Amino acid sequence: MAWERKMMRTVRVRNEQKVGTLARLLAAISSMGASVGSIEMLNETAHSVLRDITVYADDTEHMDKVIEAMRHNEGTRVLEVRDEVLALHQQGKIAIHSRFPIDSIATLRRVYTPGVVEVCLKIADDPELARLYTSVSHMIAIVTDGTAVLGLGDIGPLAAMPVMEGKAMLLESLVGLSGVPILLNTKDPDEIVQAVTAIAPTFAAIQLDDISAPRCFEIEERLQSMLDIPVMHDDQHGTAVVIASVLMVAAKRAHVDIGKATMGQIGLGAAGNAIGRMLMRLTGDQVLGADLSEEAVERFTRAGGKKSDLKEIMSECDIVIAATGARNIIKPEMIRKGQIILALSNPNAEIDPEEALAYGAAFAADGRAVNNVLGFPGIFRGALDSQAPRITPEMLIAAVEVLVSMTPSGELTPNPLNKKVHQEVARAVAETAMKQGIARAEYAPYLQG
Amino acid sequence: MAWERKMMRTVRVRNEQKVGTLARLLAAISSMGASVGSIEMLNETAHSVLRDITVYADDTEHMDKVIEAMRHNEGTRVLEVRDEVLALHQQGKIAIHSRFPIDSIATLRRVYTPGVVEVCLKIADDPELARLYTSVSHMIAIVTDGTAVLGLGDIGPLAAMPVMEGKAMLLESLVGLSGVPILLNTKDPDEIVQAVTAIAPTFAAIQLDDISAPRCFEIEERLQSMLDIPVMHDDQHGTAVVIASVLMVAAKRAHVDIGKATMGQIGLGAAGNAIGRMLMRLTGDQVLGADLSEEAVERFTRAGGKKSDLKEIMSECDIVIAATGARNIIKPEMIRKGQIILALSNPNAEIDPEEALAYGAAFAADGRAVNNVLGFPGIFRGALDSQAPRITPEMLIAAVEVLVSMTPSGELTPNPLNKKVHQEVARAVAETAMKQGIARAEYAPYLQG
Repeated sequence: MAWERKMMRTVRVRNEQKVGTLARLLAAISSMGASVGSIEMLNETAHSVLRDITVYADDTEHMDKVIEAMRHNEGTRVLEVRDEVLALHQQGKIAIHSRFPIDSIATLRRVYTPGVVEVCLKIADDPELARLYTSVSHMIAIVTDGTAVLGLGDIGPLAAMPVMEGKAMLLESLVGLSGVPILLNTKDPDEIVQAVTAIAPTFAAIQLDDISAPRCFEIEERLQSMLDIPVMHDDQHGTAVVIASVLMVAAKRAHVDIGKATMGQIGLGAAGNAIGRMLMRLTGDQVLGADLSEEAVERFTRAGGKKSDLKEIMSECDIVIAATGARNIIKPEMIRKGQIILALSNPNAEIDPEEALAYGAAFAADGRAVNNVLGFPGIFRGALDSQAPRITPEMLIAAVEVLVSMTPSGELTPNPLNKKVHQEVARAVAETAMKQGIARAEYAPYLQG
Repeated sequence: MAWERKMMRTVRVRNEQKVGTLARLLAAISSMGASVGSIEMLNETAHSVLRDITVYADDTEHMDKVIEAMRHNEGTRVLEVRDEVLALHQQGKIAIHSRFPIDSIATLRRVYTPGVVEVCLKIADDPELARLYTSVSHMIAIVTDGTAVLGLGDIGPLAAMPVMEGKAMLLESLVGLSGVPILLNTKDPDEIVQAVTAIAPTFAAIQLDDISAPRCFEIEERLQSMLDIPVMHDDQHGTAVVIASVLMVAAKRAHVDIGKATMGQIGLGAAGNAIGRMLMRLTGDQVLGADLSEEAVERFTRAGGKKSDLKEIMSECDIVIAATGARNIIKPEMIRKGQIILALSNPNAEIDPEEALAYGAAFAADGRAVNNVLGFPGIFRGALDSQAPRITPEMLIAAVEVLVSMTPSGELTPNPLNKKVHQEVARAVAETAMKQGIARAEYAPYLQG
């Protein structure tokens, strides 16, 4: 169970050509509480096998101990320990590229002065043409103030950049959009709203990311009310889409009828609030909500939720989602037989899924089962293809339904790197925008052919 | 003389295989006051020659007449008229690219969660590492409010986007930097300063572009005083670098000693003010300045210039630079024998260079002789390589000197697409920053090997 471990190293080993050497090495690693990713065989002779083993550990100290244990394995020689994650991050992971080369003065004159003048004048005359003749059509601002980065909290905007770049890579790789990280050096909602609206003409959509609650609610709402392009806080709605789909898959598997089930949401922060609201929309039923913050509970009840507490939710609900950031807050003895439990906090879940299952849960998973990569790319692509001015709850539900329908049996989600999934999400989101009459596009790329 | 014409079409013609047909066709085009760029031969048979001819005209009406004239040329058949400029601009000219593919879950886990966590924590611990492990190291904001776009004036930020994308293409193609257009929907200096400082952590430098005077002066100054990364308004300093180099080349060619010459600057807007100041720094001599705006004149005299007027400058100065935006403001009879005249306004110069020469100028050129592409890429690359917190006048002068020294004899500037030129500019700029003690880099890429 090491999906979310913080540290990753590639260890090159030469093992003796002897049955059981690798098995013993892996046992040594797991006995240290660490785990193993890919194992690549690089070379094999009559005497030895050369391998690169990806090892996951909790921190530097832990990693050192694991590697020490590897060195002590009989028949194993550790040749080198590489930090491939850092190597991949050197100079950053994204860049602005020209879509074609400037290989002659003739091309220069077409893409720059004087050729560009005619294009500028056309757009000045009809601003709608900017969608056609500029990169604004595919640029999405990925905006963060670095206040709620992954499970790390407020580490600042600069330290959040590797995450933003990761999202930009995914937008390009999965749906062909240009995500532009925008790091804010202010946490003041007024200043954030002001800055983002000031630069908004550059973008076809705004993705808010890793902005802490409760500021994230106000910032998203105010921006969306001021701008006529989609604004979406991924930690709320992107996450809610993926969690809702996982829940529907899990319920089906556990033979729980989600339409009749009692549902409870523990923790009403950015993700929790959005998940609870999404479940109410999906089922039409009220969801119980618990949070230590009065303000968070009020926000949730205003949205139709019912005030509750941890104890009541655990004893009353067939389906429980926890997103509290608090480790082991759900005690095993609170589990009700047949319950569905999603304990989402990273890296330390509210309850260990194995323990929940041991105490009678019909289904239990933690945050590692869920990858928000499945949400935002297709949602934004669909919104852009239909030129919707905002992302409606109905568009999000369409995305949930695609994820559920494309989840292979035995899995909780589709493969996040399967582009077909993202295309289908985009198609469903765009079609919903059209049905709702908010689409402004005459056509959407993925809807053609 | 059609360098800066606003309209460009590619016309495909089939000419009879007969001596003189093409010559007559070109004569027909030039008799209409239009001009011709590339002529590509696509196919040739015993009977005919198929060609693509790039035609430049002033506007749509003019282009229609030119093409009509081509149709009437004996032996010519016009097969199609293509707008390749617009075709090249479809969907924009730039995109965000991943620097390597996300081709497996293993890679996803290295560039995104959980691998990214370690990189985030390293940067949180030491923000300087963001230079090493994020794309901030090569990202430059290209910021405009669209108030002074080329010679077109205030056409708004969206209509300025094709120009900003062109600059981004050049930054990538010529010096490997990532230019990120930032379009502002405010013209208020306070709001612009606020927005740019709010998003500044994203970037290694700020390039201000096509922002009208006098706001551009205040905006640049305030931003540079608040940020510890280079802020440069290209229309001021990038232009001044290129103009100063052209002037030095021209003076040499006309056997004018720039150290002893009297110099006058007509028009003290963004470019004019910067050019005048650059000339004073280069020579140590005072430059005469004229402008209809009292404020502009005061700004220039505060910087060491001498208040003057058009008439006095034309009668007193050996070297005259005009950047007024006013067509034909210099009358041919004002020209003094042996004068050097640069009439920069686009698309209509203050005096036609041919006329100036006919009236006795030793050298005359207009804005078409000058390409600001030669300035900003190398200047920014040098500033970034040395991690200078600002771009000093000395760094700009170093750039001028490289441009002068690399101009082939008989030319006014080096070839703007010659990467070696930009590398040398970058090297000189970085070395100057180091000499001045403001460089923060331990090494600069172009200085190695």
